[in-house]
Amino acid sequence: MTEFDLIEKYFVRLTPAGRGVALGVGDDAALLAVAPGSELVVTTDTLVAGVHYFADADPAAVGYKALAVNLSDLAAMGAVPRWFTLALTLSATELTPVWLDGFSAGLAQLAREHGIALVGGDLCQGPPAITIGALGECPQGQARRRAGARAGDLIYVSGPLGSAAWALAQLKAGLNPDPACLARLLRPVPRVALGCSLRSIASAMIDVSDGLLADLGHLLNASDVGARLDIDTIPYHASLDHDPAQKWRHVLSGGDDYELCFTVPPDRQEQLASIDDPVCRIGEITPDKGLSCVRNNGTEYVPDRTGYVHF
Amino acid sequence: MTEFDLIEKYFVRLTPAGRGVALGVGDDAALLAVAPGSELVVTTDTLVAGVHYFADADPAAVGYKALAVNLSDLAAMGAVPRWFTLALTLSATELTPVWLDGFSAGLAQLAREHGIALVGGDLCQGPPAITIGALGECPQGQARRRAGARAGDLIYVSGPLGSAAWALAQLKAGLNPDPACLARLLRPVPRVALGCSLRSIASAMIDVSDGLLADLGHLLNASDVGARLDIDTIPYHASLDHDPAQKWRHVLSGGDDYELCFTVPPDRQEQLASIDDPVCRIGEITPDKGLSCVRNNGTEYVPDRTGYVHF
Repeated sequence: MTEFDLIEKYFVRLTPAGRGVALGVGDDAALLAVAPGSELVVTTDTLVAGVHYFADADPAAVGYKALAVNLSDLAAMGAVPRWFTLALTLSATELTPVWLDGFSAGLAQLAREHGIALVGGDLCQGPPAITIGALGECPQGQARRRAGARAGDLIYVSGPLGSAAWALAQLKAGLNPDPACLARLLRPVPRVALGCSLRSIASAMIDVSDGLLADLGHLLNASDVGARLDIDTIPYHASLDHDPAQKWRHVLSGGDDYELCFTVPPDRQEQLASIDDPVCRIGEITPDKGLSCVRNNGTEYVPDRTGYVHF
Repeated sequence: MTEFDLIEKYFVRLTPAGRGVALGVGDDAALLAVAPGSELVVTTDTLVAGVHYFADADPAAVGYKALAVNLSDLAAMGAVPRWFTLALTLSATELTPVWLDGFSAGLAQLAREHGIALVGGDLCQGPPAITIGALGECPQGQARRRAGARAGDLIYVSGPLGSAAWALAQLKAGLNPDPACLARLLRPVPRVALGCSLRSIASAMIDVSDGLLADLGHLLNASDVGARLDIDTIPYHASLDHDPAQKWRHVLSGGDDYELCFTVPPDRQEQLASIDDPVCRIGEITPDKGLSCVRNNGTEYVPDRTGYVHF
């Protein structure tokens, strides 16, 4: 089967008509219409077999997650996802109808949920890796950045942290993870609707991909402020209490959660209360640099590491 | 060194200020301003070590070429390159100052030539591969596609074919390639200015990446026409005559040339003559499907294969 046959068979279903696509997959490049008054929002992320997912993982979950981590980056800007490209390097192991069908089905599921279209790609043979480029739109000047948090702003997260890291730790130990935690590792939900709702509410925003301390740290650096985290207020899945020794490590430094972490000025608390998605207040921005983790008895907790280290 | 240190050290120089970039590298996503009246033109291509380049290749040439092949796709639409993303997966072999410095210098050279900015990326450890996503602009409705060629249109290429394939064949045989041919393998020149000039002249266009017969074949399929190639009129480097047995194979089916192949209606020949870039007429579009290769003595040449086979 040629590259072109594979694209025709497994990936053309990902390119529905319309949706701002003047010319989609199958030419040298795609032609897209960005809505007038919108900024183009662009991100790219790679998943490498054996690094970001188990080489024998369910291909549908791999396809889903490769897109989800990119949509999470768009969500963290407050952008609406519109299009994506797919650069797929596969070894003989993946070049089977079962793998390709599963992979494209997982990808298609999330693409359909968000009404986005595949507009280009590349298919190579080599050590398996998946790079997706995601393109979104945001009304001019309304995107949320990492910079923008001010002393006195309150810090929120959009959901429980540490579930994915806990599930991964259990898998690595040969144990059966809690199904809810495993689902968060395999099929994280990018908080796209929430990100858009927060455009006029949040002062700064980031998604939690490398762990709360690391990602909040980026937000603090970009905003030139510090923070106090009330760590007993951070939501986490009850099954993490089974391993008290590792709990805080997973909650504070576990990667792969893809919840949003954002800051809200005191005078926008009412506006925040009006949105549907559940969010959880976990701390406050301080004028002093640095990030302190405080227990509910007032003592300070000193974490042993901050987040996922790439190199 | 962390991912962030590496980006700071080697890649921030690729993100000059201005150029439609409201927010560049260093946030969850970039924010870009597409010019009003322009379509966004998007493409992506991967180079895998050991497949698309030798694992021990000069890193500057690898960086240059990874961007060049993407700019060639934009050129084939008649688009002006504007921005690019870089997803870089590297093994310990490449994670050295020498490799990273060389790679980013090669990339920077071509990026500077075209005035384009790096706007995002991802850096992972794993089997080495480089995926670039290139973004360009084209005035609304003026991009050239593979479809659009009509019977009677004349077929052109923008430069000599087969040089890269010939250089690669010599390298594989342990011989020293002709330097001019080697340069075309290592540092192909994307025909960006020509592509833009051809917007109002060409009826259909494609870049020659997989070989003339394969790529012209895509153009013919998309346009629902056939062609007669006068193969003795196809330009090629004189050193290919050293291997007459393989010459036509390299010229007709050798990949990696990155010249433009395009069709021009008879009534636009004068307009074509007015542009500066040298182009070479090599055949004519026919109403009958199929692609015939004709020698200057009138006999038909039957090629042994059409182009680079990806799978």
